[in-house]
Amino acid sequence: MKFFDGGVTAAKGFRAAGVPAAIKYPGRRDVALVVADRPCACAGVFTTNAVAAAPVVYDREVVKGGVAQAILANSGCANACTGPDGYKAARESAAKTAATLGIDPKHVLVASTGVIGAPLPVDRLLKGMIQAAGELASTREAAKNAEAAVMTTDTKPKEAAVRVKIGGKTVTVGGMCKGSGMIEPNMATMLGFITTDCAISAPMLRRALKLAIAVSFNHVVVDGDESTNDSVFLLASGEAGNAPIVRAGKDFDAFVEALTAVGVALAKQMAADGEGATKFVTVTVKGAKTQRDADRAARAIAKSPLAKTSWFGKDPNWGRVLAAAGYSGAKVNDREAEVFYGKTWAYRKGRVADAAQLKRLTKELEGDTLVVTVDLHLGAFESTIYTCDFSLDYVHINADYTT
Amino acid sequence: MKFFDGGVTAAKGFRAAGVPAAIKYPGRRDVALVVADRPCACAGVFTTNAVAAAPVVYDREVVKGGVAQAILANSGCANACTGPDGYKAARESAAKTAATLGIDPKHVLVASTGVIGAPLPVDRLLKGMIQAAGELASTREAAKNAEAAVMTTDTKPKEAAVRVKIGGKTVTVGGMCKGSGMIEPNMATMLGFITTDCAISAPMLRRALKLAIAVSFNHVVVDGDESTNDSVFLLASGEAGNAPIVRAGKDFDAFVEALTAVGVALAKQMAADGEGATKFVTVTVKGAKTQRDADRAARAIAKSPLAKTSWFGKDPNWGRVLAAAGYSGAKVNDREAEVFYGKTWAYRKGRVADAAQLKRLTKELEGDTLVVTVDLHLGAFESTIYTCDFSLDYVHINADYTT
Repeated sequence: MKFFDGGVTAAKGFRAAGVPAAIKYPGRRDVALVVADRPCACAGVFTTNAVAAAPVVYDREVVKGGVAQAILANSGCANACTGPDGYKAARESAAKTAATLGIDPKHVLVASTGVIGAPLPVDRLLKGMIQAAGELASTREAAKNAEAAVMTTDTKPKEAAVRVKIGGKTVTVGGMCKGSGMIEPNMATMLGFITTDCAISAPMLRRALKLAIAVSFNHVVVDGDESTNDSVFLLASGEAGNAPIVRAGKDFDAFVEALTAVGVALAKQMAADGEGATKFVTVTVKGAKTQRDADRAARAIAKSPLAKTSWFGKDPNWGRVLAAAGYSGAKVNDREAEVFYGKTWAYRKGRVADAAQLKRLTKELEGDTLVVTVDLHLGAFESTIYTCDFSLDYVHINADYTT
Repeated sequence: MKFFDGGVTAAKGFRAAGVPAAIKYPGRRDVALVVADRPCACAGVFTTNAVAAAPVVYDREVVKGGVAQAILANSGCANACTGPDGYKAARESAAKTAATLGIDPKHVLVASTGVIGAPLPVDRLLKGMIQAAGELASTREAAKNAEAAVMTTDTKPKEAAVRVKIGGKTVTVGGMCKGSGMIEPNMATMLGFITTDCAISAPMLRRALKLAIAVSFNHVVVDGDESTNDSVFLLASGEAGNAPIVRAGKDFDAFVEALTAVGVALAKQMAADGEGATKFVTVTVKGAKTQRDADRAARAIAKSPLAKTSWFGKDPNWGRVLAAAGYSGAKVNDREAEVFYGKTWAYRKGRVADAAQLKRLTKELEGDTLVVTVDLHLGAFESTIYTCDFSLDYVHINADYTT
């Protein structure tokens, strides 16, 4: 498996575009279109928020069918908490997209991100969609335009692509995503579109996505707010020409590995670009008694405002890390536990860092990446969460977002 | 029942003091002593954090005995994650306090708040304790000195007192507390000391405290970080002369009502003085299908960094409030739900605030108090959480706390 420069158009059979349509502000790309040459096997994973946005409600039905050919996405408006009108807007934009592209309306997915509670400006969206349909291409530039069009408070476009040999054929998996705030356990204000030319059945595709998401998108935490709009779509064109994957085995494992690699690469980019982030932080809890304990403790640390602000302040206040593990619900014995920043220990089974050691810890906090490790020494389970620090800019950004 | 100006020395039989002992910084009061004239019935509630500080581990044993006569408290050092030495320090300071006061060492409670992982400076603490023992008084000034001595990032001392008739006698309940950051569901970096002259058995006192805490201290949220040190102590001297309360009934109910009133008053003061807070926010979720749903949804809203920063920014981004209810795990149907800021509706069963309504909502955000109400219209259950907004100062305060 090899990473290379690429995104949602890296795999054979996919084109994309991103155009400005003044959804919220004029002059920036805010409508993206991703289209496959032929109907694809598809899978999707969505927010578990009980307040799901209209496009999520709509897409769940599409994904049940297991086939999709296009994704219409917009930034600037989430089309969430918009009632029956919001659902109609989602359905209408899918239908018009299908008509424009000459494809089955049941094969169009829609995705929105932005402010909750504002009505979707369908006219402008559809005008943008028609323009985007005229600009569809499989070039790097087209992929990058699509990436730009889904950005909200993101400061960077996000993409990843890998190639892998499956049954003697070269299979490509490529993807794009957005997500900066409202990022939590079960995904994020996160839109992820992944395409592949792997030949694989819809049920196996679904299974692969579930496995990949579990250790990638679902292990990103920015602020602990789970969005109404989180969606990850995976479309498989089958054009790589491999023997179709229809059951578990070597080929399936190779595909899951490639998909997971793309998912983790995208997840890390989201965490690093968390709203206001000055640091990309990897939190690993090991030595947990159960997998659930490892997950809980790692998430609690990654979500703790006190730990996150201390990372921002380059303050080696490791006690907040251990305290968060303590209230996570995981079994923790502070006489057994160890805390490390990078390779420097902060706390060892009751022994605390002295002044010289605190100086070394402060050094670990100086870079733009930080690895926090807690070893509970109670068992064999481990979990890693990708996150970021909590800065003044997070508050700036979120204190003044809709207005 | 009537509120009046008073604190931990309001009830008959209690004296207090607060002195500077340079625990962390010189020149500020940081050691508090609360002493009863005679051994009291006592009850205590502690953090559920698995990483409990040494004083919490020590006090749990004292409280099991049901009798206490003194509380020694310090700010500037939490004596948490300090291993066996930390426990020894807690035990030794309790023993020395007992010797100084001439009371039973099993009747001394200890409490610490401040930085985690730093060793407790026992010598300075005990010097302060001896000075405080010499200054014990039942005056307003003495109570205020004790309140000042437990403050960390608190900007204001916190106290409340009520008088109530029980069995024809006047019973007083008074208390003090501290708590500003690390404040979450199951209490907080919160120390609460409540005294009463009510005659009541230890088992009934325990029951009363549990009931009062459930709707007061346990309904405060600042940042969602549950501390290692949370402790609430309740001491009853019996000097009011009422017929001792030994079972449920009218007298017990009157006492619980008074205790709850003091608890809620202290809880509100903590929320209003949350780290960096510019607004005291009351979040009420009603119409929930179950009590658990009401609690979960209210807590999720109160903890949401996105909701909290929008309150700080005076931004009527009510969608974040509804989204938080949505991911709380509570049953929410956004076609049934309503959201209010003050008495102004933001969202009504699918109908969203237009520009004129948003203007009205912005007005509600201008004061230093805000009432957020979500009516789920799914049942009869209700829950209220006391919280605050999330400001730039929260990050300032917590990015640079230990160093």
